[in-house]
Amino acid sequence: MIILGVDPGLADTGWGVVGFDGQRYWPVSYGTIKTSPRESQQKRVYTIAEDLLALAARHGASAVAMEDIFFTKNITSAIPVAKVIGAALHGFASVSIPVHLYSPLEVKMAVTGMGRAEKLQVQEMVKILLKLKEIPRPDHAADALADCICYCTHNLSRQLPR
Amino acid sequence: MIILGVDPGLADTGWGVVGFDGQRYWPVSYGTIKTSPRESQQKRVYTIAEDLLALAARHGASAVAMEDIFFTKNITSAIPVAKVIGAALHGFASVSIPVHLYSPLEVKMAVTGMGRAEKLQVQEMVKILLKLKEIPRPDHAADALADCICYCTHNLSRQLPR
Repeated sequence: MIILGVDPGLADTGWGVVGFDGQRYWPVSYGTIKTSPRESQQKRVYTIAEDLLALAARHGASAVAMEDIFFTKNITSAIPVAKVIGAALHGFASVSIPVHLYSPLEVKMAVTGMGRAEKLQVQEMVKILLKLKEIPRPDHAADALADCICYCTHNLSRQLPR
Repeated sequence: MIILGVDPGLADTGWGVVGFDGQRYWPVSYGTIKTSPRESQQKRVYTIAEDLLALAARHGASAVAMEDIFFTKNITSAIPVAKVIGAALHGFASVSIPVHLYSPLEVKMAVTGMGRAEKLQVQEMVKILLKLKEIPRPDHAADALADCICYCTHNLSRQLPR
């Protein structure tokens, strides 16, 4: 199972690709998509969604795990982020790839077991679970990898007998 | 010139199609797209964007005029609306139809000449400019028709000698 994780943002969208066989994770790739404020907003959200679609196709991702935006965040930045999420929801729906949206709390819980974990604790756990030598940089990419792990733990728990 | 106007919303998106020859407007069609909260958010934003794309294709729209969302609005509803806008931005970009986003103030100014116009004054002017017998219902559709008029006045003023 290959998962594409996405930490959405208009100027800077983090992404990460993780493989998971039900027990072990392996890192495939990660990075960021940047867009320029000199481009129109339509062009920027389109570019981000298309780049994400290309990444999913290149790595054969069967699902997308994305951090959702909530009203508790800085609201002037929340609106453009929500537009990026909408563009990605549309793009992935058009190629029948499901997008799972998670709250920051869900991601922290899934990766560290603690809803109040600090950013660095999440990143440290991402490094350990993916057997990376360093904490992935930049932060957006590390967050996207954490989203992948969140998806896998959620998906695994559904498969376990209750 | 045929314009598709959109008043975006997750549960209820208003749309209107207006023709404009540089001097006169004519109403083509208007209505709303409704989605159910029983569907996933991904399904809902996808349905809205696809329905809008189908409307643009059916009526031969060359541009889309859409009301943008700002942080001054109710923020719990602003995030889903921004996702709908993002989905539409992506969908229309994929078929090379430009989307023009306008603030509520811009729409009021364009339709009534007054930034502080009441909703009913805007709707009354939409009725007069489009030579309709009644104010279009529901409100979301009337707002979408107002967005079309906003696009036309902005576009016309660019063509006039300065």
